[in-house]
Formats: sequence, C-alpha cells, structure tokens
Amino acid sequence: MSKIISLGIWALGLLLMASQKHSPLLSNIGLSVLAYKATAFFIPRVGAAFIRRGFSGKDMNKVEKRVIPETMGAVSAMVYFMCMILFIPVLFYKYLVPERSRNQQDNPLGVLSDGYTSVAEVQFPHDQLGAYLSAVISILSISLLGIFDDLFDIRWRHKFFLPAIAAIPLLVVYYVDYGVTYVSVPTLLRPFFQRTVVDLGFLYYIYMAAVAIFCPNSINIIAGVNGVEAGQSFVIGLVVLCNDLIYVFHPSNPEAVRAHLLSIYLILPLLGVTAGLLKYNWWPSRVFVGDTFCYFAGMVLAVVGILGHFSKTLMLFFIPQIFNFILSVPQLFGFVECPRHRLPRLNVKTGLLENSYTVFTEGVPLPTKTLLTIRVFEAFRLIRVDWDHKTKRPTRCTNFTIINFVLYHFGPMREDHLTLCIMGIQLAVGLFGLIIRHGFAPLVYPQDNI
Amino acid sequence: MSKIISLGIWALGLLLMASQKHSPLLSNIGLSVLAYKATAFFIPRVGAAFIRRGFSGKDMNKVEKRVIPETMGAVSAMVYFMCMILFIPVLFYKYLVPERSRNQQDNPLGVLSDGYTSVAEVQFPHDQLGAYLSAVISILSISLLGIFDDLFDIRWRHKFFLPAIAAIPLLVVYYVDYGVTYVSVPTLLRPFFQRTVVDLGFLYYIYMAAVAIFCPNSINIIAGVNGVEAGQSFVIGLVVLCNDLIYVFHPSNPEAVRAHLLSIYLILPLLGVTAGLLKYNWWPSRVFVGDTFCYFAGMVLAVVGILGHFSKTLMLFFIPQIFNFILSVPQLFGFVECPRHRLPRLNVKTGLLENSYTVFTEGVPLPTKTLLTIRVFEAFRLIRVDWDHKTKRPTRCTNFTIINFVLYHFGPMREDHLTLCIMGIQLAVGLFGLIIRHGFAPLVYPQDNI
Repeated sequence: MSKIISLGIWALGLLLMASQKHSPLLSNIGLSVLAYKATAFFIPRVGAAFIRRGFSGKDMNKVEKRVIPETMGAVSAMVYFMCMILFIPVLFYKYLVPERSRNQQDNPLGVLSDGYTSVAEVQFPHDQLGAYLSAVISILSISLLGIFDDLFDIRWRHKFFLPAIAAIPLLVVYYVDYGVTYVSVPTLLRPFFQRTVVDLGFLYYIYMAAVAIFCPNSINIIAGVNGVEAGQSFVIGLVVLCNDLIYVFHPSNPEAVRAHLLSIYLILPLLGVTAGLLKYNWWPSRVFVGDTFCYFAGMVLAVVGILGHFSKTLMLFFIPQIFNFILSVPQLFGFVECPRHRLPRLNVKTGLLENSYTVFTEGVPLPTKTLLTIRVFEAFRLIRVDWDHKTKRPTRCTNFTIINFVLYHFGPMREDHLTLCIMGIQLAVGLFGLIIRHGFAPLVYPQDNI
Repeated sequence: MSKIISLGIWALGLLLMASQKHSPLLSNIGLSVLAYKATAFFIPRVGAAFIRRGFSGKDMNKVEKRVIPETMGAVSAMVYFMCMILFIPVLFYKYLVPERSRNQQDNPLGVLSDGYTSVAEVQFPHDQLGAYLSAVISILSISLLGIFDDLFDIRWRHKFFLPAIAAIPLLVVYYVDYGVTYVSVPTLLRPFFQRTVVDLGFLYYIYMAAVAIFCPNSINIIAGVNGVEAGQSFVIGLVVLCNDLIYVFHPSNPEAVRAHLLSIYLILPLLGVTAGLLKYNWWPSRVFVGDTFCYFAGMVLAVVGILGHFSKTLMLFFIPQIFNFILSVPQLFGFVECPRHRLPRLNVKTGLLENSYTVFTEGVPLPTKTLLTIRVFEAFRLIRVDWDHKTKRPTRCTNFTIINFVLYHFGPMREDHLTLCIMGIQLAVGLFGLIIRHGFAPLVYPQDNI
C-alpha cells in the first residue's frame, strides 16, 4: 500500500513537473515533490558510504550513543541544486520554445506566471536569468563551504567572511537590476530625519552581505537537538512562502509579483528537500544534517530575501535566531565561560532533556563582567542561576542558548517535543512578522515600500 | 632572495589586479598571478588535513611507495572559483561605476577591451553576465562532482551524464544568445550536400553536451604519471590562449573579439592555478591532483570552447585525448582484458618507467575478437605484442593507453621525461591544430566560419 502511495507521489511530481506549458509554478510544485522523494530516496542509500568516509557523529542525547551518518545536508543541497538546474529551461520555457500557440486564457493558473509574462514576450529576459544564476552560484558555493567545513572543521575566523564573497554575484545583480538602497523612514521618525526615505547607499550592500553571513550561521548555532536545524529552516521557509503568496495573490505591481514568484520557485524545492531530510533527521534521528545543511538552507533564505527585496521582512522571521545570537554573545565573546558543548543533557531516568549548565569552579574568583552579565541575564529571566547563599556566589548557570531558555521556562521535555517547541516559537514569530509587515506597516509607512 | 621575488610577484599581481580602470585584461593577468601564488601557498598548508580525512594515495612509480595528499585539485578549483567571483565587478566595472571620465584614448591596451566597449555603453550587458555566471556554475558544479568522486568513488554509470546536466545553464545561454547550430560544409563536400552550411539543429546541443562530458573525462583517463594531468591541461590551456590571441589581435568582428576575450578571462586563471598545482605535482610529486582537478580543468576548457564558439577547433587540441580514448576502447569495452592498473611500471634497477602489460594466461583460449583486436592494433603499431612462436598465441601485450604507446615507441624513460613527452605531443598537436584552423581552413571553407 505504502509502495503504491509512494509511486503515486513520484507520478504526481513528474506529471506536474512536465506541465511547464501551463505554468512554471505547477512545474515547480511538481519538482519540489520530486525533490522530497529524491532526498528521501538517496539519504538511506548513501549513509553507509558517508560513515566510511568519516562523516559520522554520536547522538549524545540518547542512552546508547549510536554513531550515525553526518553531513546528510549535502544530499539535500545536491538534490536542490539539480532541481535549480533542471528548472532553468522550464522557467524560461516560453522564451525558448518558438511556437506560441498556447492560449493563456485556457489556463486558470496562468495569472500566477503573469510577472514573467508581461515583461517581454519577444526578448529573452537576460536580467531574470542573471538573477537566477547568481542565486544558484551563491547557494552552490555556500553548500561547498559547508562540505569543506564538515570535512576539515575550518576555523571560525577563516570562514566567517566567505558567505559575503559567495554573495558578490547576487549583490552585482541587485546593484544592476534594482539598485534600491533607500529605506523608508517610519512616520514617527520623519520629523527627525526631515525626509520620507533615507538612502543608505553603499551601506545597504554591506547590510545585504551581513544578511548573507548571518542567515547561514544563525541556523547553524541553534543545533544539537534532533531535527532542530531542519525544523527551523522548514518553518522559516513556510513563513517566507506565505509572505510570497500574499504578494502574488494581491498583486500590487508586476515587478513585485515577479520578485516573489522567483522567491517561491526557490523556496518550494527547499521545503521539499528539507522535508525529505527531516524524515530521517526527526527524533530519534537516523542521520545528522551537518553544517552543510545549515549553511545551505540559511543561504537559500538569504538569497530569497535579497532577490525578492524583502531582506528586512526576512529579519522579522529570523527573530528567534537573532534572539539566540544575542543570548549567546556573553559565551561567544568570553564574558562567561563557554563549555565545549552547550546542548541539553539527557536525564536517563526520565528520558527527558534537561538544561545543561556552565559550572563555576569553587574558589576561582569570578571577574566582575561575568558576575554583572549573569545578574542582568537572570533579571530578564533569560537564564537560571544557582547561587551559593553563604558566599553570595553563583555555582552554576544554564547555558546561553534559546534551547536552554526554552527548557528553563517550559521544564524538561522529550527531545522531539523540544524541537516542536522551537518550531512553534519560530512559527508564532513568523506569523507575528507577517502581521507586522502586512497589517501594521501601512500604518507606520503610509506608502507600501515594496 | 626568493622571499623578495615571491613578495614582488604578489605585489605585481595585486597591482595589475587593481588596474581594472584601465583594462579588465590587465586585471585578469594580475588575478592569474595571484591565483598561482595562492594555489602554491595553500597546497602545502592543507596537505596534512587532506591526508587526515583520507584524501591520500600511494605513489606507485617510486621505490619507496610514499603516501601523499590526493585531491589537491580541489585547492586549484576553489582558488579559481574565488578568482571568477572577484573578477565579476572588474569585468563589468565600467557599467557599475557611474563616472565615465576615463579617456579610452590614453590607454594603449584599451583596444583589447573593445569587444566589451562597443556593445552598450549605457545599458548593462545582462547577456554577458548570464554567460559568465553560467560558466561559473558549470565549472563549480563539476568541481563538486570531482570532490564527491574522490570521496566516494562514484560508479562510472552514475556519474557519466552529470557533466551534461552541469552544462544546461551554458546551453540555455548558448541557445538564447547565439543559437548558431549550423556548420559550414567544406568546399570539397559541397557538391554532395548541395549547400554551403548544414543546420544540425538540436543535434548541435547534443554535440555540445558531449563536449562537456568528453573534456573532463578524457583528461581524467590520461593519468597515473606524476604531473601528466596538470601538464596536459596546462598545454591545452596555452594553445587555447594562443587561439584567442589570434582573434583578439586580428579582430574580424566585435562579437568574435568579445567571445575570445571571455575565453582569455577564463583561461588565464586556469593557467595560474594549474601552474601553482604543478609546482607540487611535478616529478617527484609531493601531492596528487585527484579526479577533482581533471574534471575541473576539463570543464573549464569545454566551457571556454562552447562560450567562445570554437568547440570544433577545441577538438583539434584534444586530439591526443581522442587518440587515447580510441586506443582505450578495446580494454574499456572488454574486447581485451583490462588489468586494474594500466600505468607504466617502474624498473627499480634503471629508475626508468617501462611499459605495463596485459598478460594472457597460458592455456585459457582467447576469443576471436581479442585476437583480431590485437592483430589490428599491432599492425598499426599501436601496441607491442609478444607471441609464443610455438603455439602462435600472444603471451602478453602492452596496455592500450597513449602513455604505453609513447613508451613503446620511444623506449623506457624517467617519469618526468615521460610527462614532458606527453606535453610535447600535446603542444605539437595544438600548434598543428592552430595552423589547420587559421592556415588551411580558409582554403577549405571560403568564408571564415567564426
């Protein structure tokens, strides 16, 4: 029975994929279904080869610490890359195939491809191809960086700026095709700036490069729990998709529809390959995703935000990651001691995950900056601190991550519930971001700044 | 002293690189010098890490069979990729920087950038960016395939068609921007075809995809001798460069100049990274290049041939590889038994490399197809066969590769002399190809088929 369903899904995917005469969107949906099936097909088949070549890790949060394949994100990234390449002829089908006998009116979903229809019926849209190819390069090169990182554990300072270099083709395309570097000033602040827009100029490119650095890394540091890397990426992808659909179904101008259609074409296959990966990465994990997946998924989201001109809205969807980053600052920059692993600890008796702690060795004096940080973070209820009431000295505190923050506030829970909890927060924040962007932004910004 | 020279080269490279206001060509030369230095800088520094991750191999043609790092082509490919990305803003500098105060007349090399100047001074050349980005994608993805092949030893049938998929963006760009699918008919054959050109249509795309499959693989199968993979790539690169320079200095039409300038921009950094690799891969090798390098270098050459519209001329430069492929057919397709290694054998006493043989076990009857193949190949002096005069049966024959062919005709030689010999043949064939193309083609084809 499950075989028949599986075959049915393959067939449906192929059928939709082959429907490019009707709409690139339908084809893209089909391609994404195939991407899911292909990822789920390859992962169990290549796992053993990955372990043989040393791509493996111990699952620390299990009683029996099994060794399972790591870097399975490479499979997702490769399947995604193949989809991107195969989609090129589909996306530009109507420019490539000379006969124009298709009747656009026959096709109920034709309206969705309007952005691509209205621009130029005769001339090939080189700018769109350029944007698409630059996206592929950025995503492919960051996946490669991920693979090298999984292979060689590249030092933090050696790899930090590489995503910005990978984003150069993207920034060139942005500069050439849009070049919009001004941001609208909220109504409240306009008296101070005495203008409605502020042109950030070159700074805006620095900002976009920073987005390209931030997204991959921020997904990479919420890790260590089965399914959490792929889970958060999946939810952000869903929220981005909702945002795109709002633009496509309430078209304001063809340029915006086109940008958000491109975003959809990049996001749907990401959802496909991420779902395929989650099938094996979900608790109890049979594979790990590796840095490769985090970099890859983060870069797809960054690329989509930059090319779709909603990199500021995208940051609303990354609030949990930003929160986690700010929370991590004291341990990343040495204000508070940083243990080698900050992932939660399994309580073998209950089978639940509990907070992990940074323990302060008795007798060793604590610097003022550490004490101050701990007091401030405790006051905001970001960490739990155990105090020695006699010496008025902290004995230990929970680690500075969003995962420990969740465990502190919601109590110990099973590993998959923890992942679901993080995904739930991500979804809530994303929906909140959508409301802010589409509900309240018009109040703050009288004209929509698409 | 050598430190000062080295610093001087770095400085020269940086200086030229920074000269993009004058000519992208000068910048590209500078970039290629930097590519050489960077490759030579990184290779000795990452070797140990590569060995730790299992990228290593035994040097079979040495008395002490030392284990040295393998897959060092990955360093070349990564440096090359970085160059390609960093060159984007340089190549399109004049479209990106608004002030147009530069005086083209001041610049003696300005004529070289003519192809890029004449097209459009005002509008950004999206078609050129598209072509460039598609080249980067093809090269990057094939390098990735090489890395996966070095990691997992992918089966022949699984990887055979992948270069054709990697070439899809290239073929789309070719289709959109040039779409030239006809070939000129030589004067002699015109009475038979009754026309001057034959349009191959879709078949021409199949042909280009075949070029993308052939070039990487054909370089990969002339291997097993220190420096021979990088050496042949370097020589083909040089010959392609000569071909480009002929077009650029005898401009026939701006379109051809532009195509061959693009080819130069892609070839020069290839020569740089290949030279940097050869420094360590030359006999006695301290590193191996891996499949990664062969795929990468072969794909750069294929890309250059396709985008520069000289894929047919390119095949003239690949005659040694074509010869080697045809020679290999009997062993690849099982007409003659194929031993696991076909590389030459070291004679420990003389220190020279000698032919390796396929030995026919006594008593086992040989199929007619094997006997026939051996007789034909022996008649053309392609292999040496030892016969048992009593039974009229072959006892052994040299292996069916160009390397064994050279050793058969020129006798045993030291490993580096063998590599030099192959490189010399490659160079002679290349120069012969240039003469054919530029000296005789006008006789055979009355009008030049650029």
